[in-house]
Amino acid sequence: MTDAISAAEHADRRARLSEHVRTLGAAGYVVCDPTYITYFTGFRFLSTERPTVYLQNAAGDDVIFVAEFELERTRAEADFERIETYPEYPGLEHPMRILARVAADLGLRGTIAADHDGYPGILGYTGPKLSEVTGAEIIDIAAQTETMLARKSPAEVELLRESGRWCSRAHRLLQEYSVPGSTEAEASLRAQSEATLAMLAERGSGGLLGSGDGVKAGYRGQIGHRSAWAHAVAHNIRFQPGDVLVSETGAPVWGYHAELERTMVIGEPTGRMRWLFDHMLAARKAAFDAIVPGATSASVDGAVNAYFEKHGLTSYWRQHVGHGTGLRVHETPFIDVGNPAPLRPGMVFTVEPGLYDPEVGGFRHSDTVAVTEDGYELLTHYPDDLENLVIPANG
Amino acid sequence: MTDAISAAEHADRRARLSEHVRTLGAAGYVVCDPTYITYFTGFRFLSTERPTVYLQNAAGDDVIFVAEFELERTRAEADFERIETYPEYPGLEHPMRILARVAADLGLRGTIAADHDGYPGILGYTGPKLSEVTGAEIIDIAAQTETMLARKSPAEVELLRESGRWCSRAHRLLQEYSVPGSTEAEASLRAQSEATLAMLAERGSGGLLGSGDGVKAGYRGQIGHRSAWAHAVAHNIRFQPGDVLVSETGAPVWGYHAELERTMVIGEPTGRMRWLFDHMLAARKAAFDAIVPGATSASVDGAVNAYFEKHGLTSYWRQHVGHGTGLRVHETPFIDVGNPAPLRPGMVFTVEPGLYDPEVGGFRHSDTVAVTEDGYELLTHYPDDLENLVIPANG
Repeated sequence: MTDAISAAEHADRRARLSEHVRTLGAAGYVVCDPTYITYFTGFRFLSTERPTVYLQNAAGDDVIFVAEFELERTRAEADFERIETYPEYPGLEHPMRILARVAADLGLRGTIAADHDGYPGILGYTGPKLSEVTGAEIIDIAAQTETMLARKSPAEVELLRESGRWCSRAHRLLQEYSVPGSTEAEASLRAQSEATLAMLAERGSGGLLGSGDGVKAGYRGQIGHRSAWAHAVAHNIRFQPGDVLVSETGAPVWGYHAELERTMVIGEPTGRMRWLFDHMLAARKAAFDAIVPGATSASVDGAVNAYFEKHGLTSYWRQHVGHGTGLRVHETPFIDVGNPAPLRPGMVFTVEPGLYDPEVGGFRHSDTVAVTEDGYELLTHYPDDLENLVIPANG
Repeated sequence: MTDAISAAEHADRRARLSEHVRTLGAAGYVVCDPTYITYFTGFRFLSTERPTVYLQNAAGDDVIFVAEFELERTRAEADFERIETYPEYPGLEHPMRILARVAADLGLRGTIAADHDGYPGILGYTGPKLSEVTGAEIIDIAAQTETMLARKSPAEVELLRESGRWCSRAHRLLQEYSVPGSTEAEASLRAQSEATLAMLAERGSGGLLGSGDGVKAGYRGQIGHRSAWAHAVAHNIRFQPGDVLVSETGAPVWGYHAELERTMVIGEPTGRMRWLFDHMLAARKAAFDAIVPGATSASVDGAVNAYFEKHGLTSYWRQHVGHGTGLRVHETPFIDVGNPAPLRPGMVFTVEPGLYDPEVGGFRHSDTVAVTEDGYELLTHYPDDLENLVIPANG
């Protein structure tokens, strides 16, 4: 069974951030973003308008700052040496005022590194800035943090590999249940329930936390002509012969998400569908082939654009090649001509160039890859050829 | 069938915001927050690192600014007179630079009102500030917008009433499937699937958009001793006789969410459980009774605190009385001693005072109410007495 990220790895992440913060001349750092807190500490919580904040000083002393009602759970489910609390939000004294005293007690003054200058406006939260309550100068470390999240460790890649396995399993069920006469909601709910229960049966509670965090499989409305809309929204559509379908699946394993999507057709594909499908496969191959040592995000996206231009397909283009994925379903690196950053081993992102024809539908597969020293490793495995993606029209 | 919010109501919301913006002396306003855009325009979209922005000038001319791939869907599913696009994010030219030209073309210069000084950092988005790309002074209208969202119209209350009906139905199924030997995931997935399919069968696609937006019902790990943690996270727990359960349900109707939660017990409740349950019911009654003309958020929360103090129960307190709900599952008003703002007709919030005993469990019902001219209307209806909330221990 794939383990959660170890305490040692979380400590190493904090040490690397601390080292960066030291070079900035800051007295320590403050992390407000819920995903970043999980990344640096492993702590999981329901993020709301009530601030949860992590602080560490240059000497390595740290504090997790939570609402009072989280105290017992935090003690039981995490191993912070020091937990500080506030009664409630907004409370008789604003949590940020109480946080300022905690920061002062940790010696965070003068210059503080932080991912946000105060708690972000989650669910309508409002409050004073960190700079205001501490009187300190705030140095932004959000970009540095994003850079760290973008390069996955071997343990993170293993969780994404495991996520990819469950995406495949969920997709197999989704394809099976997507039959003419059924609806997208019926197919999706059935596939999601079965895949989630299978994952729980195999993994126990390990890695699948939060009742809303089950395996996902569905279409988000990308059915028939709506499949030509790269980001449609669901309409409870009933499957019909002749439909082009663009699926999506996801399966968080200890919070890490791979992505697997396939274009499928109900019934015999038309010649036009085959033509679009084949060009999509070729554009996808151009993207995979471009993931080589020395490549950049821009060069991978550019390789696909060159394919589109060469074949006169630019009018079918709608989106760049892909996006990073990990603790968030989208994150850096964005595989885009405007992103000149080099690809580095450990980066994990989707490869999903597509062709979109309003008259016919959308043609896009999405797979998740991890960059290696000499190329990439595919983390999602599922048939990609049209013959294996045709759903019989007679049910 | 409950209709979506009308175009006329969206226009009225924009007119009220424009009127406020005029008093600030601004040339117009810019809205970046995805929920706010839906609130002011009815436009629904998948919010990602790719900015979606709405702009309106003082003359009433407006623009929706979207990624190129959203153009056809936006034309088909919304009725904006003017749609402007950018190729991609980050793109060869950053979307904010393109947005600056759109803003200038609309006459937004000098002073601009905005909910954020640029697109917020959703999913790792980064970019220049609105003030930087436009050279304008930005006046923050987030607080004004929150105030508008907090007071629901009759049409919004009707959607929340309808949401409450589906919460009740989902809770009935959840209670039925929460039997000893079963797990929280099994009960939750089964109740959610059935309630979602029933809602779709009755309402068609109307009001239930997005395959991830179905009816929710579950426990989030609040089972047995973990029910004493007000915000536990799921652990795929198997139900056992003697468990205290704290449920949660939600059902978005055109994006509006009511909330219904109940404390249940598997098997014969102990005397200690009955004592905690009865005090919870009494504290809840104190909260309901305090929702009268002239009340404030603070006075409602204070009434519950007074009950706790009078009966020596303060050690069981963990959270304030409740939170607003609407397009977001938590929002203003927060029903808290630190919020002196008066309750106003149309405000919709949860009433959920609880007692939490680490040795026994958590005792909290949550119901959603709408403030009226002379008190409140209950939007969620479900038995609240212990006899109706005992689950037989023998299955």
